[in-house]
Amino acid sequence: MSAVDFASFVDELASRSGAAILPFFRTAIASADKSRGGVFDPVTEADRAAETVMRRLIAQTFPGHGIVGEEFGNEREDSEFVWVLDPIDGTRAFISGVPTWGTLIGLTRNGTPCYGMMHQPFTRERFSGDGEAARWIGPSGERPLRTRACARLEDATLSSTSPRLFAGAEREAFERVENSVRLTRFGYDCYAYCMVAAGQMDVVIESGLKPYDIVALVPIVEGAGGIVTSWDGGSPASGGAVVASGDPRLHEQVLARLKG
Amino acid sequence: MSAVDFASFVDELASRSGAAILPFFRTAIASADKSRGGVFDPVTEADRAAETVMRRLIAQTFPGHGIVGEEFGNEREDSEFVWVLDPIDGTRAFISGVPTWGTLIGLTRNGTPCYGMMHQPFTRERFSGDGEAARWIGPSGERPLRTRACARLEDATLSSTSPRLFAGAEREAFERVENSVRLTRFGYDCYAYCMVAAGQMDVVIESGLKPYDIVALVPIVEGAGGIVTSWDGGSPASGGAVVASGDPRLHEQVLARLKG
Repeated sequence: MSAVDFASFVDELASRSGAAILPFFRTAIASADKSRGGVFDPVTEADRAAETVMRRLIAQTFPGHGIVGEEFGNEREDSEFVWVLDPIDGTRAFISGVPTWGTLIGLTRNGTPCYGMMHQPFTRERFSGDGEAARWIGPSGERPLRTRACARLEDATLSSTSPRLFAGAEREAFERVENSVRLTRFGYDCYAYCMVAAGQMDVVIESGLKPYDIVALVPIVEGAGGIVTSWDGGSPASGGAVVASGDPRLHEQVLARLKG
Repeated sequence: MSAVDFASFVDELASRSGAAILPFFRTAIASADKSRGGVFDPVTEADRAAETVMRRLIAQTFPGHGIVGEEFGNEREDSEFVWVLDPIDGTRAFISGVPTWGTLIGLTRNGTPCYGMMHQPFTRERFSGDGEAARWIGPSGERPLRTRACARLEDATLSSTSPRLFAGAEREAFERVENSVRLTRFGYDCYAYCMVAAGQMDVVIESGLKPYDIVALVPIVEGAGGIVTSWDGGSPASGGAVVASGDPRLHEQVLARLKG
């Protein structure tokens, strides 16, 4: 079974998780603080409801597949196919009412991201890709996703979740790139990667990612013609410090600038 | 004629300007740099097309009214009623493909903001208010907008367009607030004020605003129960350094913290 054959199943995961999440968007909800050390990391009822419904459907349909999820941990993570789920990537945007969060549904085969979708149920947009091609489906229709050419840092639009994401040497490295680009935007989480895939932005730089923050996005960006690696050029599939670029020529310059 | 009577006319302005703008969203467009000194300030064809269509409709319907617009300057600005227009507030979000920009349509009567709408044509959301009440209309229905209670800075969610908006003493003042709040979000332009009105965020702090960046938003936030002033507590209608809070108790604390 090829990765492409999973597309309609992923659509179903997106529909069901979206239905689980939307009733909680822009309503007064309790959010627990699950992180230690006082960092604000909201967990919503929506997160848990959506991951539960996705895990159930995967277990019913593909009982041999593994699952890595933000809320409920890992199962059979050594399987050939592993689903990597983040029901609400961008929980801070979610609790702030801003529709730049998304549901990330990724699939790895033997550890390599092979299919991914970012679903934004409020705007009713689905960005998906398999590393070879990528497409957007929204209320007004559908179209292929293609990154744009951008060969020079000084012409690039850069995005990152927050300037407060970075500390110490990472902050200095990020600011070396930030000081070189044309425009920097903060606050968009997974939406930014999809805008790189759509040819609207040129590079996303982040740090401290978990696998479920990035696995679904790799086949979208790469399917649209871009490239995603760790800051040192390795595989991004395990998360950590990640760069996604629409133009491979730009990517080389960003990695060099991050290195110093 | 009371401000409320203008509501259906503003709906028509929103529909026509949205139709003028949407064909340019997420397409490759040329953007001119209209500012001096090398600051990146994109102007799009969409901006000009939308302001043209709104000015024409206002001139036809209310030939005695004044108009203040971002793109084409001021006319009859001493009239009793003056329309204050920003076809695309958040041009950087717009060119980045992210739907947190909006069309701002404000109306002042004898210099005081009396009606306003923020229209997001991509998400098909309209936030409007007249200082006494405010409402949201979207694809899923409509509902009143109400700010939420938030009496303490340490419980507040703060938003601002960019941490790079502030310099010198203003930056220090902003950071005094930022360091006191629970969560800070960047990148949302006019959408952030509407999320204060919707009870999703608590305070927006910005600087360097023009009248057309803020006039439309004042009757929305205040109609939802919030308060908008300059950093020193005066009228926000002329722009500059502005604070919008959902809870008047919080507003007092923010102003005090900004003062130092």
